[in-house]
Amino acid sequence: MKTSPTPQITFPSLAEKFGTPLFVYDASVMEGTYSALSAALPDSVDVFFSLKANPNVTVCALLNSFGAGAEVSSHTELVTALRSGVAPEDVIFLGPGKDERELLACIEAGIHAIVCESLDELEILDALLAARGQTDFPVLLRVNPSFGSKGSGLAMGGKPRQFGIDEAELRASKSRIAALRNIRVQGVHAYMGTRFLQHDDVVNNTRQILATAEDLAGHLGFPLETVDFGGGLGVAYFDNEEDLDLDELGRGLAPVISAFHARNPRCRMIMELGRFLTALSGTYVVRARYVKDSMGESFVVADGGTNHHMAAVGVGSFVKRNFPIRHLQRLDDAPQRTYTVTGPLCTPNDVVAKKVQLPEVRPGDLLGIERSGAYGPTASPGLFLSHGFPAEVIVRGDQAYLVRERDSTDDLLAKQHLIDIHPVSP
Amino acid sequence: MKTSPTPQITFPSLAEKFGTPLFVYDASVMEGTYSALSAALPDSVDVFFSLKANPNVTVCALLNSFGAGAEVSSHTELVTALRSGVAPEDVIFLGPGKDERELLACIEAGIHAIVCESLDELEILDALLAARGQTDFPVLLRVNPSFGSKGSGLAMGGKPRQFGIDEAELRASKSRIAALRNIRVQGVHAYMGTRFLQHDDVVNNTRQILATAEDLAGHLGFPLETVDFGGGLGVAYFDNEEDLDLDELGRGLAPVISAFHARNPRCRMIMELGRFLTALSGTYVVRARYVKDSMGESFVVADGGTNHHMAAVGVGSFVKRNFPIRHLQRLDDAPQRTYTVTGPLCTPNDVVAKKVQLPEVRPGDLLGIERSGAYGPTASPGLFLSHGFPAEVIVRGDQAYLVRERDSTDDLLAKQHLIDIHPVSP
Repeated sequence: MKTSPTPQITFPSLAEKFGTPLFVYDASVMEGTYSALSAALPDSVDVFFSLKANPNVTVCALLNSFGAGAEVSSHTELVTALRSGVAPEDVIFLGPGKDERELLACIEAGIHAIVCESLDELEILDALLAARGQTDFPVLLRVNPSFGSKGSGLAMGGKPRQFGIDEAELRASKSRIAALRNIRVQGVHAYMGTRFLQHDDVVNNTRQILATAEDLAGHLGFPLETVDFGGGLGVAYFDNEEDLDLDELGRGLAPVISAFHARNPRCRMIMELGRFLTALSGTYVVRARYVKDSMGESFVVADGGTNHHMAAVGVGSFVKRNFPIRHLQRLDDAPQRTYTVTGPLCTPNDVVAKKVQLPEVRPGDLLGIERSGAYGPTASPGLFLSHGFPAEVIVRGDQAYLVRERDSTDDLLAKQHLIDIHPVSP
Repeated sequence: MKTSPTPQITFPSLAEKFGTPLFVYDASVMEGTYSALSAALPDSVDVFFSLKANPNVTVCALLNSFGAGAEVSSHTELVTALRSGVAPEDVIFLGPGKDERELLACIEAGIHAIVCESLDELEILDALLAARGQTDFPVLLRVNPSFGSKGSGLAMGGKPRQFGIDEAELRASKSRIAALRNIRVQGVHAYMGTRFLQHDDVVNNTRQILATAEDLAGHLGFPLETVDFGGGLGVAYFDNEEDLDLDELGRGLAPVISAFHARNPRCRMIMELGRFLTALSGTYVVRARYVKDSMGESFVVADGGTNHHMAAVGVGSFVKRNFPIRHLQRLDDAPQRTYTVTGPLCTPNDVVAKKVQLPEVRPGDLLGIERSGAYGPTASPGLFLSHGFPAEVIVRGDQAYLVRERDSTDDLLAKQHLIDIHPVSP
């Protein structure tokens, strides 16, 4: 992790210019991550960015400029991807609860495929296409495989889930699917879980999904033109974790992918990634407002906390573990004291770092929570205590760009209405 | 809980008019809650509404019309309370990380008191007043008491915390506080925790806080004009919980309050409540989009979920417990099947009710998660998957009022900026 985005653009200079709390994304780190991944993956694999990890339009545009397509899961994510410049044929849309507006927007945009997650959805989509007199719309079947996976922070396959169609149900539904005249089933999607840090687990998942896809295509009788085998590549947040070994991942995937590719030379293979593509690039910058002791413990009360970065409370974990955190004005100093870093909220759960070692912190000092470029504001209760969502900045070359404005009080109140409550109700 | 707000205004009619997902607040339930509380509490206790539970300006106006003041914790909450019509002398501001703008806004508005949470904050406030040539500004000292409490869902006193000033430190700081010339310390604030459901615990907390306040005022030598003894009254969400017995609470508080009042006849006593005042009035209304089976379990995929109602995942609990949920179109029907109700997000954690018994649910049906008027959208990651925050409606008399507009795609993207990424970075 670099100590500052560039020699000219330091975290203190960004905090001065854009205020705090602030999310800073370093485009060069994002590009480095993407390049390392591309170099490791077989050439025949397409990388799609899952916007849910970081829905900023410029983040999406940058990843697209490096070569990523887009995996979207809501109307607004679809609009974001298209505005950012992603070609419709490099967009897929998935999610267990799509509404009609979302399905229509996909049809109108002409995206690569809608990933259908139930037989009912296939029929609804087919009927929408029929009403428009449109046929041949590309669809992937999201399968909930019979097999599970290990090594995930949050497993999704092989269990009763709201996602996808059980493999057994799909196998039993050949005639029901064949009866649909306006969709064109052309592939399979499966997602086994998130935050895999062992390359072997990802390789095993990929092997099993590709085999299941071939098998389902054969059984249901459709040409296999796309397989999205998910990904779920994690990043190491905590002391006891290590980042994925991309070289090993590439070595493990190569024979699996090349064997599949040889059998299915026209099949597009998609790996969809969110966290992995953006997490490392981001730093959540907060300013210490107060430093105080309570019953033998030292607290830093900062100007931002879990309202912007809920994940730092402990991702999917019952035990509080700490994201990496640094004193941004004493980068080279040795830790001197143990601090618990809180945000400004009125709840004892508003802790972004519990009992961490830091150089001395004084009011006004800047702290940076690293690896925070994924599931930051978007996955946090930004309206809590009406503080609003923070500003977000991208550093690229020798420039810093504001890519998300901070919420003002007027913004926060703009959508509320005060009704005249004085007439007594009957 | 009423089955629909009024005979004319049913949940299906509201869903039709305002769309789903939708939060519906029933003003008559809010008024009933407030009246029952007022009747139970000694007359000398003032109730203040903690806006963090539900920061809607009309909700605040309604509670103010019933008699509540406002406890606020951010600049926007302060503006909300004032816009809603709360008199400045009925507003207090607390929070461990106030910034200078917030302190100045309190001074300019002339609120009842700023609740200071550290000695540093007292000094910062004193200096701000000095710079304005202003004196005599009312301040409460938030004390972190030496004693703890039992019965809270989330304890706050008697432990190392970011809140308030340790009782022992306050006692040792007489001269430091006395040196401040522009503030006027006139009271004490303490908050022992949230979600108390046993009246005895609240009575014990109140007794101890009032005693501590008298003792601190005597020791530090300030006139005791205000004591905010918190409250933390809970509501029963789960099967194993029962609502507070307000009559018992009133009976228990009466001698404690009257003895204190006799000794301190000019001291304002404040009970601050958020959840208790609004929770019962609210219903989160979602529409089933898909109903599907997976590996022997039935799932309802609804159009809203934890992105609007994170608390329903299990408030402060490691074990998933369910808020009360009803089928809003089959209110009188017996449960027929077991469903897990999810939202539309792409995470298996997006579950608002796990394995609940309901009448048969079909796509298009409406479900209502009850007791959802507190810590709903404000405490939820509303930008997740870019679905945005939901609409909120208040039903009052025979009218339904839109008090918060649903986020549109344009709203969600309005604050983002797409930078020109095509020039290659140096």
